[in-house]
Amino acid sequence: MVAKISQRAARMPPSPIRKLAPFAESAKRRGVHVYHLNIGQPDIETPAVMRDRLLGIKDRVLAYTPSGGTDKCIAAFEYYYRSIGITLRPGELLVTTGGSEACMFAFMACADPGDELLVVEPFYSNYSTFAALGDIRLAPVVSRGEDGFHLPPIETWHAALTERTRAVVICNPNNPTGTVYTRSELEMVAAFCRTHSLFLICDEVYREFSYAGGEVHSALMLPQAEPFVIVVDSVSKRYSACGIRLGCLITRNREIQAACLRMAQGRLSAPGLAQVLAEGIEHLSPDFSSTMISEFERRRDVLYEGLCSIDGVFLRKPEGAFYLMPRLPVRDSEAFCQWMLSEFEYEGATVMMAPAPGFYATPGLGRNEVRIAYVLNEHDLRKSVEVLRHGLAAYASLDDKV
Amino acid sequence: MVAKISQRAARMPPSPIRKLAPFAESAKRRGVHVYHLNIGQPDIETPAVMRDRLLGIKDRVLAYTPSGGTDKCIAAFEYYYRSIGITLRPGELLVTTGGSEACMFAFMACADPGDELLVVEPFYSNYSTFAALGDIRLAPVVSRGEDGFHLPPIETWHAALTERTRAVVICNPNNPTGTVYTRSELEMVAAFCRTHSLFLICDEVYREFSYAGGEVHSALMLPQAEPFVIVVDSVSKRYSACGIRLGCLITRNREIQAACLRMAQGRLSAPGLAQVLAEGIEHLSPDFSSTMISEFERRRDVLYEGLCSIDGVFLRKPEGAFYLMPRLPVRDSEAFCQWMLSEFEYEGATVMMAPAPGFYATPGLGRNEVRIAYVLNEHDLRKSVEVLRHGLAAYASLDDKV
Repeated sequence: MVAKISQRAARMPPSPIRKLAPFAESAKRRGVHVYHLNIGQPDIETPAVMRDRLLGIKDRVLAYTPSGGTDKCIAAFEYYYRSIGITLRPGELLVTTGGSEACMFAFMACADPGDELLVVEPFYSNYSTFAALGDIRLAPVVSRGEDGFHLPPIETWHAALTERTRAVVICNPNNPTGTVYTRSELEMVAAFCRTHSLFLICDEVYREFSYAGGEVHSALMLPQAEPFVIVVDSVSKRYSACGIRLGCLITRNREIQAACLRMAQGRLSAPGLAQVLAEGIEHLSPDFSSTMISEFERRRDVLYEGLCSIDGVFLRKPEGAFYLMPRLPVRDSEAFCQWMLSEFEYEGATVMMAPAPGFYATPGLGRNEVRIAYVLNEHDLRKSVEVLRHGLAAYASLDDKV
Repeated sequence: MVAKISQRAARMPPSPIRKLAPFAESAKRRGVHVYHLNIGQPDIETPAVMRDRLLGIKDRVLAYTPSGGTDKCIAAFEYYYRSIGITLRPGELLVTTGGSEACMFAFMACADPGDELLVVEPFYSNYSTFAALGDIRLAPVVSRGEDGFHLPPIETWHAALTERTRAVVICNPNNPTGTVYTRSELEMVAAFCRTHSLFLICDEVYREFSYAGGEVHSALMLPQAEPFVIVVDSVSKRYSACGIRLGCLITRNREIQAACLRMAQGRLSAPGLAQVLAEGIEHLSPDFSSTMISEFERRRDVLYEGLCSIDGVFLRKPEGAFYLMPRLPVRDSEAFCQWMLSEFEYEGATVMMAPAPGFYATPGLGRNEVRIAYVLNEHDLRKSVEVLRHGLAAYASLDDKV
């Protein structure tokens, strides 16, 4: 008898963002252009002032770096935080291998096997992977498209609470919905955490991505939230540097700091070259972010208006990040997204979207929704909307849907 | 009441390699030179042909790379494996964030919370961290200094087996002992795994580090071992590129491949710049490894002979890696190592070593042993031996040992 893989490994979900990739590949082989709206990989250039740091590396031995991050990399993150009005003390920031690792560390530090994390649904699908690694249950608190995916009222939170609840996980601005929570929403969650002795894990990797001048309130700024807040951050989106894998975990809770540092020691260091690149943060042009955000705001507007003009499509205008999650006039978004790639083309092109069920833990939810990332230029977004419009019309006329 | 950290986080051990660091820092502040024998950071240059790949990067967007690794990076690893007589098929190799991540993926893929992994003790201390993350128990199978830390007989393995045993973990060549297992030792373990339906996780990151022409047998070459072998590998030691954080996991077990790829999708990508650097593997001078290995063999000989010349020190000559674990004439190596840093100096210098108890799971073992990494040049190693000789003599004469 051959050895069996673990149950946690068997349960680990495939990525809803990447699982249709084989269909996209085969569309491309047929000569169909695929507009990639499925993955949050911005087309923005990584700033030269960061990339060019690599040319200045004089070390001939690319050695381990300190487990908590190099002094220079930590200083660069602290510089950024000061620029948004947050002063960090030594030990409060741990450099991680992307926001992904920060998230995994946070989950592991808060919850034991069988414990539960309350997570606002729909949620970033990879939270399921980190939870599965730690044998942690994600208990969903549902937000709805009709409410622009804003937080449900406190009664919903109370109903989801159990003896095993250890933390609340929110992503603000939100991936996959684009929602930016108001200060009073955040204060409601923080008060709930305080009352029930829960940690508040706040994924703020899209912190700059807020439109029409809307403010993003960091959980680090919430009054009296110090002891229980854990913030997950990353350079990926803010500086369009997804591939270097660099992020950080910030908390003022000393026990969490010490536990996460021990986890970090176990994997020795965060990527060294990425940390060198991060040193460039201190030399960025002051308008780098605002220029990028204006560009994304235009894209959001183009896409939102385009989608609203399609019969049967519903969504509220999202306030931030670069995602939106419209409801489509289909019964099964998995089947529809696959059909778009394998059966449909319009003027030689099709669109790839992420079916929404992968962003829900509750079975059956999200079946008529998709997640769209607006990481393409305006022209391509307009084209994508036309392709989707024609795709939906053609799909509606099918007798026997795949 | 403030939220409590998880039990797994509380149990997570601090690194025995790094926990004396504050004492080393304060020795340096007093002007004492510290010879670092505590950490496996080689002083060898990362090959220029790898470092220079960074200069050729033309991408202006440092984007996510495929979760399983870039085609070019996989090709570079496959090229290396062909050069040692191992042909890998597509899907068998997954690029990871260092050997650390490969190890964590392997543990998680084999074992559920409460399951056990048999691990040859003493063992690489960070296995404890990966096990703690997954709430997995490490069940030690003790190897002894008298036997040169070679594998114990099969009876010892049987005695350690329980219903919860899921895999055997071995490191060959071994960190922390420097032992290289013989083919018949490996075949014994493989047969044991086959009989009891266990996976065999083999950490081979020191594969090239074998002296006096001794051969290292990869678990990938063991006959009939295909379905249950998982190999952990890394570029860190082979190319002295510890800081870039790049490794791989290799298995012919399709279920493990699929499960580890899902875990990899959860963290999106391995570090992109590191993967570019790895492309240089195909352009290395053919004698790069042999030159480096000769250098380490000389160091081993210098250190081994030096240590044997100290009264009361015992060790068998290790066959590989760049560690050795001598028994010292002290009762408590933790206290001794700390004393060497905080109280002792000889000709303005002291040595930092890793106390052995951190490499054992069995309480009480390793209290008169230390792990020494020979990552310094010959001159510094000779100096270190003299410092240690005088340190041991001075420590022996203390009435009241700290």
